Amino acid sequence: MQASRRISTILGGGSDGWDVFNKARQMIAAGIPVTELTIGEHDIRTAAPILQDMHRSALDGHTGYAAIPGVTALREAVAARVQERTGVPTRKENVMITPGGQSALFAAHVAACDPGDRALYLDPFYATYPGTLRGASAEPVCIQTHAEDAFQPRSADIAAQAKGAKSLLINTPNNPTGVVYSRATLEGIAEVCRDNDLWLISDEVYDTQVWEGEHLSPRALPGMAERTLVVGSMSKSHAMTGSRCGWLIGPEDVIGHAINLATHTTYGVPGFIQDAAVFALDQGPAFEEEIAAPFRRRRAIAQNVLAGQNAVSLVPAQGAMYLMLDVRNTGMTGEDFAYALLEEHHIAMMPGESFGKAAAGHLRVAMTIADDEFEKALRTLCAFAESKT
Amino acid sequence: MQASRRISTILGGGSDGWDVFNKARQMIAAGIPVTELTIGEHDIRTAAPILQDMHRSALDGHTGYAAIPGVTALREAVAARVQERTGVPTRKENVMITPGGQSALFAAHVAACDPGDRALYLDPFYATYPGTLRGASAEPVCIQTHAEDAFQPRSADIAAQAKGAKSLLINTPNNPTGVVYSRATLEGIAEVCRDNDLWLISDEVYDTQVWEGEHLSPRALPGMAERTLVVGSMSKSHAMTGSRCGWLIGPEDVIGHAINLATHTTYGVPGFIQDAAVFALDQGPAFEEEIAAPFRRRRAIAQNVLAGQNAVSLVPAQGAMYLMLDVRNTGMTGEDFAYALLEEHHIAMMPGESFGKAAAGHLRVAMTIADDEFEKALRTLCAFAESKT
Repeated sequence: MQASRRISTILGGGSDGWDVFNKARQMIAAGIPVTELTIGEHDIRTAAPILQDMHRSALDGHTGYAAIPGVTALREAVAARVQERTGVPTRKENVMITPGGQSALFAAHVAACDPGDRALYLDPFYATYPGTLRGASAEPVCIQTHAEDAFQPRSADIAAQAKGAKSLLINTPNNPTGVVYSRATLEGIAEVCRDNDLWLISDEVYDTQVWEGEHLSPRALPGMAERTLVVGSMSKSHAMTGSRCGWLIGPEDVIGHAINLATHTTYGVPGFIQDAAVFALDQGPAFEEEIAAPFRRRRAIAQNVLAGQNAVSLVPAQGAMYLMLDVRNTGMTGEDFAYALLEEHHIAMMPGESFGKAAAGHLRVAMTIADDEFEKALRTLCAFAESKT
Repeated sequence: MQASRRISTILGGGSDGWDVFNKARQMIAAGIPVTELTIGEHDIRTAAPILQDMHRSALDGHTGYAAIPGVTALREAVAARVQERTGVPTRKENVMITPGGQSALFAAHVAACDPGDRALYLDPFYATYPGTLRGASAEPVCIQTHAEDAFQPRSADIAAQAKGAKSLLINTPNNPTGVVYSRATLEGIAEVCRDNDLWLISDEVYDTQVWEGEHLSPRALPGMAERTLVVGSMSKSHAMTGSRCGWLIGPEDVIGHAINLATHTTYGVPGFIQDAAVFALDQGPAFEEEIAAPFRRRRAIAQNVLAGQNAVSLVPAQGAMYLMLDVRNTGMTGEDFAYALLEEHHIAMMPGESFGKAAAGHLRVAMTIADDEFEKALRTLCAFAESKT
């Protein structure tokens, strides 16, 4: 029996971009050791004190239905955090707790778009973006960024597609490029949103991982708090990917609607997880820096390794747990390079082509393995690239 | 700035039916003690051994992204359970783990319906049903059941609305009526679904709470496995409401599509919760009976209390944690009765009108307080009803 058209077409057809990843996993399953730099997940687990607090909460009886908008303590903690970091007045009524950032991304698009509405996003993109827009029955419209701009989007390109659109999705610090959008970039984007009455959906889940410059939330720009929906999460900042705890920030009335959506889609987030999130946020910025430190360290290692050669160049690595390497000097596509590296050296990286068209001829390197292995893999990669140039 | 039309209209306008509940909570907040028989949640918390197992899993490091379809052990445990109870061959590929039954309900409707498609449901209904259909951008079409049929749906009434519809949502054992659909009812429904090429979305979250007769999953009827999507959950059977762990069962290809939807909406369920669910399911039927026992006991108490009077009659209480009381002999609406009972006796129950039109003049009683308090509240209710007749 036939499933709906919309659910049958979420993937959009064609390769899902995970072929290299899947091949690596097949090799591992066949007993071949592979060095994986593919997945955006810490090489540590959630810290034990956070898990102890979760257990305390559960044993204390916080195992029944939790308030659907989120427990008050967590909504208030997130609001205070956002206000402190951005200067934008933020109350718990501006915050809905979601089962992970992905759920907030989906809710934001349901809130911004009716079925068939045009929803803009930028290439290169995080793997789930186009499917999220299709899943919300919006019409995804992709706007290219350019390697020669270090993937900072051009506001004129966005403006050219903005007529009749309802939303624009951005992500800074960016996955997959590791670029942090500049103030000028964000001011240009904000202007396009204001001029074209667009919702700006701002995915800021990497906001604690900034190595150069600073993270600017576009919600803080003039006239933007009323039209910006911010997606945040405990996943990357606190190594709590598996806890599925994130949030959506926006105007109070839209958050009210999003709570109605949550009542009919997810029905809240486990109370003991929310309590653990409050505990984790209470650890403060020092703990967040501790979680971010390995990536900061490995970025420095990469800069050092890459400084000694010309075959591979590094896209400005300003934030997030990824590096984007330009391998176009080899004359190979990112995909061919990634396959060859996997086959010849058993090192797995995501080709730039996995994330759209704009990062063709690039590789995304997740900085998610131990420093020494990471350095060794990069040295191998550079030697391999040099042998191809 | 304007939110989308669809998210602004999820509630459908008018009263949400929770006025009595809200008033009771206001009274409690003002320091007035109220006996609440409103919410479908156990008066016990999740059992400590389940929580210990969750903690063990978390400390063991199951805190990263879990497989989006669900961990293999849980998918297999649910498949085995479903196959054993229904006789329908069921493999893990027929199972997707969801963050709660509500999420499975939503996914089922996205899988069955495209935006604007007619989605049928029955009155009286669980509070979130019409909003779930609207949230999925379907057009909700409500079909009345009748008190004189003890709320067993008439297949002819469903058939009359089936033309051009894509799905029918049913719930047995039923919230709010406490009725278990008979084999004849389900065979009639199955015939309508086959004749009209409808998806049957079968909410079976109360399948371990059957006091009379037996629960029949319509997926087991001839030709129905290919067109039935079953919603299940750990919430009611294992007192794990707050853990948000449920599942969707269906044909393998549709589950494949639903996994794609999950990738773009929820991104999986915490691994440590899934491990705890496996542990809970491993406790077997004796544990499930232990969780159901208080409701079975209180149903007997209610039958005993009600036997001594004629003012209030009991809709056949065959399953689930609710009783439906017919108070039409008093000449009052369910809503007026519920308000008066709250004001005069500080006892809160949901009026039948909270669940649509079909249960007007009724009250839904959640059997979720201690036996002695429960008996006392019912005796007060009967005396109050008698004073009005």
